[in-house]
Amino acid sequence: MVSVVVHRFRFVPQQLSTFTSRSPSPVTTSPPRLRFSVSSSSSPSPLDAQIEKRPRFMEFPHLSVVHRNLMEEIFSAIEGKLGSQLLPHTLPPDVQFFQNQSGTSQGSLYIRTGNEFSSVDVLLGSWLHCELPSGALDIASLSAYLNLSTVAPHFVLEFIKSSPTSLVLLLDLLPRKDLVLHQDYLETFYSNTQLERWRQELGKLPEVQPYFLSSLRLRPLFSPTANLIRIDCSCKEEGEAVGQSRMDEIIHDHIGPIAKEVLGIWLDHCACRVGGREVGESEQALLGKRDHVIKDTAVKVDLISNLPRLFGPDVASRVISAIQGIFDK
Amino acid sequence: MVSVVVHRFRFVPQQLSTFTSRSPSPVTTSPPRLRFSVSSSSSPSPLDAQIEKRPRFMEFPHLSVVHRNLMEEIFSAIEGKLGSQLLPHTLPPDVQFFQNQSGTSQGSLYIRTGNEFSSVDVLLGSWLHCELPSGALDIASLSAYLNLSTVAPHFVLEFIKSSPTSLVLLLDLLPRKDLVLHQDYLETFYSNTQLERWRQELGKLPEVQPYFLSSLRLRPLFSPTANLIRIDCSCKEEGEAVGQSRMDEIIHDHIGPIAKEVLGIWLDHCACRVGGREVGESEQALLGKRDHVIKDTAVKVDLISNLPRLFGPDVASRVISAIQGIFDK
Repeated sequence: MVSVVVHRFRFVPQQLSTFTSRSPSPVTTSPPRLRFSVSSSSSPSPLDAQIEKRPRFMEFPHLSVVHRNLMEEIFSAIEGKLGSQLLPHTLPPDVQFFQNQSGTSQGSLYIRTGNEFSSVDVLLGSWLHCELPSGALDIASLSAYLNLSTVAPHFVLEFIKSSPTSLVLLLDLLPRKDLVLHQDYLETFYSNTQLERWRQELGKLPEVQPYFLSSLRLRPLFSPTANLIRIDCSCKEEGEAVGQSRMDEIIHDHIGPIAKEVLGIWLDHCACRVGGREVGESEQALLGKRDHVIKDTAVKVDLISNLPRLFGPDVASRVISAIQGIFDK
Repeated sequence: MVSVVVHRFRFVPQQLSTFTSRSPSPVTTSPPRLRFSVSSSSSPSPLDAQIEKRPRFMEFPHLSVVHRNLMEEIFSAIEGKLGSQLLPHTLPPDVQFFQNQSGTSQGSLYIRTGNEFSSVDVLLGSWLHCELPSGALDIASLSAYLNLSTVAPHFVLEFIKSSPTSLVLLLDLLPRKDLVLHQDYLETFYSNTQLERWRQELGKLPEVQPYFLSSLRLRPLFSPTANLIRIDCSCKEEGEAVGQSRMDEIIHDHIGPIAKEVLGIWLDHCACRVGGREVGESEQALLGKRDHVIKDTAVKVDLISNLPRLFGPDVASRVISAIQGIFDK
């Protein structure tokens, strides 16, 4: 555990300076990370012990306070409801936090698998921060995949921030059946749960535009009620600070409540569904095949095609292997 | 055939007056339909014979000239390429043209099926014109379904005009396989054909917004490169005539060329594909099941839920039965 702390400590100054130089607004300033800098002492205080319980992933050091709070709330809601079914996270420290040689790209990964009584297969959280020539790119995501004991959809929430005033949101319950052939599935998990109202609600905001994933392979993974949107709060006349503030307002007043609603639907109707019918053997085989494609596509399109250039081949390979290792179990 | 002519003749004045009263702009004025009013004579002239060959469906009497020309071009392109494979259209006259008791709702249907050597199952064209309290609703569509000799996608083109300055376009090659499990299918018919570029091209126009079908059951039928858009040319400052003119410009300069491109891809790579592999028996069974759902959903969501209130139960039932009769063959 000390090595994690040292590892953390070593990169704090660089991380802070990098961040501060790009984000002058108080809204998006990272909180002081002194709490980590004291934990290299030989006798940890009770506070240290408490901090150590908090996974590195939960820091989201490059998100605004409002955005970080939302991620924490979502994460707490999932762990609060499912935590007792999840095994402890066991990733090696250099996958819990990783960065490229120059420290311009940083990331954190958090994975917990479900125990034998759980319908959860994997809970996967991550954040990435990359200083690119075009500006900083920040990605924060939380996905929860169910296992073959249920046909219910997976949960996915991802934010891709390419500037302080531009954000892409992917929020959906990923279907695990072909919705053309299984209209009862569409009815149960999408129509009856009224997910569409939340998609429409977000779509009404003037800053929101539908977002089309560039990968054609990713698009069919999403449901017809998926929230795939780009929020653009840039405003040349009023300056970046006003745009950032409006972005926080949208996250706090609109995206947050809706993300919690969708998560609530997933927790109640999918992850903890009581009375769901048993999944037959042949159905399990097809479900497993589809789940494999979903995870494989996510890894290939999202990670294998991006991580090596952002983090170098060694770090990328380490992180991808950790995810694939869990997915292939 | 005389009954058709009488039938047509009987409704011409009402149709014209209804139309003229709502569409004062020269752009959207229907062409004179005198050519039909002379065809009740006992000895048809060569001109009559030529006119009689032209299906009622092809008139599109409530579209603007530009829009009608586009529909004619699309239709000619399909019939020009596939006509020799198609059996003559044989719908009864009261399905080729139908209307409600008051004449405020009118429609036309055109169906041709493929011969034994064709990969075309059904070519289906229609237009509807309905005077609603909110204004006129016009729908013009052309779909081509392939049969089980091929797995290639179906073609669909539909325009829904709810005002002279507001138009919804549905233009797509409908996938006949689950694109999550069959990524090679996605590659062959959607990635390799570069359909995405046309979707992006249309999306660049400032008047264009992505369109979400209200029915969740319809949404999964479409491909990830589907053109599902709403074009809004309303402009309070410049008046309706300017908006209508801009709409025609968009149809002529953008939608038309792109619809022809997409149709060309469908004709070359799907309907007349040379060297496509044979479809195995079990694959045919699944394909047939999926095709049934596609057609059934289209009929149920599009027609059964709308036609009765627009045309009354008798007319609706006649039209729906005609389509179902062909689909169920």
